Amino acid sequence: MKRNLEKSLDMQNRAKSRIPGMTQLLSKRPDMFAPGVWPGYYSKAKGVEVWDLDGNRYTDMSIAGIGANVLGYADPDVDEAVKRAIDNGTSCSLNCAEEVELADLLCEIHPWAEKVRYARTGGESMAVAVRIARAYTGKDKIAFCGYHGWHDWYLAANLKSDMLGNHLLPGLDPTGVPKGLTGTALPFRYNHIEELQDIVVHNRGELAAIVMEPIRSDQPIPGFLEGIRAIADEIEAVLIFDEISAGFRINTGGAHLVFGVMPDIAVFSKAIGNGYPVAAIIGVDKVMDAAQKTFISSTNWTERTGTVAAIACIKKHKDMDVSSHLISMGEKVQQGWKGIALKVGLNIKVGGIPPLSHFVFEYDNSLEMKALFVQLMLEHEFLSTNLFYSMFAHTSQYVDQYLQAVEDVFSFIAHAQQAGNLKQQLKGAPAGVGFKRLA
Amino acid sequence: MKRNLEKSLDMQNRAKSRIPGMTQLLSKRPDMFAPGVWPGYYSKAKGVEVWDLDGNRYTDMSIAGIGANVLGYADPDVDEAVKRAIDNGTSCSLNCAEEVELADLLCEIHPWAEKVRYARTGGESMAVAVRIARAYTGKDKIAFCGYHGWHDWYLAANLKSDMLGNHLLPGLDPTGVPKGLTGTALPFRYNHIEELQDIVVHNRGELAAIVMEPIRSDQPIPGFLEGIRAIADEIEAVLIFDEISAGFRINTGGAHLVFGVMPDIAVFSKAIGNGYPVAAIIGVDKVMDAAQKTFISSTNWTERTGTVAAIACIKKHKDMDVSSHLISMGEKVQQGWKGIALKVGLNIKVGGIPPLSHFVFEYDNSLEMKALFVQLMLEHEFLSTNLFYSMFAHTSQYVDQYLQAVEDVFSFIAHAQQAGNLKQQLKGAPAGVGFKRLA
Repeated sequence: MKRNLEKSLDMQNRAKSRIPGMTQLLSKRPDMFAPGVWPGYYSKAKGVEVWDLDGNRYTDMSIAGIGANVLGYADPDVDEAVKRAIDNGTSCSLNCAEEVELADLLCEIHPWAEKVRYARTGGESMAVAVRIARAYTGKDKIAFCGYHGWHDWYLAANLKSDMLGNHLLPGLDPTGVPKGLTGTALPFRYNHIEELQDIVVHNRGELAAIVMEPIRSDQPIPGFLEGIRAIADEIEAVLIFDEISAGFRINTGGAHLVFGVMPDIAVFSKAIGNGYPVAAIIGVDKVMDAAQKTFISSTNWTERTGTVAAIACIKKHKDMDVSSHLISMGEKVQQGWKGIALKVGLNIKVGGIPPLSHFVFEYDNSLEMKALFVQLMLEHEFLSTNLFYSMFAHTSQYVDQYLQAVEDVFSFIAHAQQAGNLKQQLKGAPAGVGFKRLA
Repeated sequence: MKRNLEKSLDMQNRAKSRIPGMTQLLSKRPDMFAPGVWPGYYSKAKGVEVWDLDGNRYTDMSIAGIGANVLGYADPDVDEAVKRAIDNGTSCSLNCAEEVELADLLCEIHPWAEKVRYARTGGESMAVAVRIARAYTGKDKIAFCGYHGWHDWYLAANLKSDMLGNHLLPGLDPTGVPKGLTGTALPFRYNHIEELQDIVVHNRGELAAIVMEPIRSDQPIPGFLEGIRAIADEIEAVLIFDEISAGFRINTGGAHLVFGVMPDIAVFSKAIGNGYPVAAIIGVDKVMDAAQKTFISSTNWTERTGTVAAIACIKKHKDMDVSSHLISMGEKVQQGWKGIALKVGLNIKVGGIPPLSHFVFEYDNSLEMKALFVQLMLEHEFLSTNLFYSMFAHTSQYVDQYLQAVEDVFSFIAHAQQAGNLKQQLKGAPAGVGFKRLA
């Protein structure tokens, strides 16, 4: 099928001249997929279906709004609640009571938590959590593991190694982060508690917080999370779990509940709003109360749509046991990838918790293979890449249709790779690498 | 009239136990008005009318969502555009083309600007602007004037004087801001160019940016803004105008357009979304392109409702010449305050650009007087304080009714003050002071 992409590609060119980096999010840049053939822009999205600016229809088996749309696009229940809020005014000189309702709901799901603050975006909410931890402890240094956004406190980790020319967090350039923050953000790797222990040895008495995702790609090895919790207690640092990606995937709530290790602060965004901008910082009383010792305040945090969306989304998530479905669809896709790759003779490595699945082509030309995969899947009318983030709207039927297309495409790629003419099949450029998660 | 406030006050108590500081924004805390009688929470807002949780109806002549609702509450045109976006999906794995449309619109209004990035909240967007300026110049220090939010780069100004026990920015506690940022944020006062000149003398070659509102309470004295621009050029610092409060008040666009002095970056939030969370950073090519030398990326910045709201709000703002109406209503209120105060024998000082008007009781017990004013105006069914931020929905009729009530209330306050029994009239506590704007 020949797709007309004229309007979508034209919009990409307009965006390039108006928006540095083209998009607001690295992971939504067309060059992260297959530049030249990836549509980049949508006019309409409903359920798992997406229409680009030229009217082409796709089934979205890719990043689910990079994990924001946990239920599906334009979810009727969430949208109805938001529209009702709009009719009653989403902002005025007073506050909306839904802030308190959402706080109660989050603390009910996380019985260890007692107090809640809000923000609108993931990076912003992590900066709030870090400020609270620093205010609570009176200390400045942060030990962390994984990815936590664009803010100074985090990118400061790259200030030191920058001079050596190799960033600790590849792809996350700290240019513009004040040099006075050098040495304040200290990374360790997931499941490597000895690296945190080493940080503690050299920075005892200076650590305000330990910041990490409770789970990302790999399962925690036995004792790892418990060990982290024990270290935090021992050195009196605030343990902050970033649940922005992991939360509401394998359960209704923070993934830490599944592992039985409780933080002092947990941060949510993405999935809790099903795409509407909302973020929540929840925590124990004594730590959260430090928010009153410092100045943390913003007008747009009081706006009602995000809060209302979160209440509706979380309730539906619980009522419909959404996480079981996300896991089940993710497992089906992971097994499908593995089985098909084996069948057609492709070496791929599959990973991730099932709701946030990924695979990697284990070849030197993996970026070309990824771009060809994206390109061929688009011809089968799927938005697809080497990531599959599941949504509640992904039914078994969609997954079956998808895997059928994957079989065609993997087979084609295997033949092209064997024939040595894979690059010649590319209509666009190879995909970019993005940043490497330090996890 | 006896108002039942049971549900509203109960919600305030629930909020106190769940949300540190009770609200997400200092300026929306009931204790900034008249604790115990201020309703604090709303169920519905439409035009200039607000209903609290107990069903009491008020005309809102106060802070207009602290300046966010420039058109009025639940504006039909903005809301219709947002609802249409919701039906077509507000988020998916692709980007919305409205980002490009809004960027074109902002650059059309501000012909000096060529590129645009987005965020969701005011403080966040100022942090983006400062990061870009630091990345562009490779320098860390910021000279600034006025209030710019809760982020580290700004509160760092208080780190130095903290040790002396007197904050440069009263009420803005920098606890939790890393001490490595000490000396990176250097304040000067509006219309005091000699203070900026002094900063330049001592920090030549180290200043990344000069950050300020082009106008706040006072008009710029002749040559002030031009002098700032000349200094920025001379020392090759990025001139950032914070238009979050000033923008879209006295014109459709940044207030700097009125004064004919162009910055390198201007930042908008509040008014451009009529209450929906959106913020925009606009700037000249060479500076904005530095956004690509650093990592600035967030999922919720890609969401569509804020962007769509901004397009609808700005178009209506222009089409209906909203700013003329905001000025006219603000002037009417300022003249009303002055005339009534004179008539009843109260000393007040009136200030602010007309769309963001305020008065101060010039008495030692001004906080008690303010609280009594708020309390008595509530009994007249007005949400009112010593600030009046005008909205397009504020008709002359509303202002007339309001000023009639103000006359009753000012007269009562003048008598109570003369009788020396003002404090005894208070049903709640005196109002809090909030933070003092350094302007």
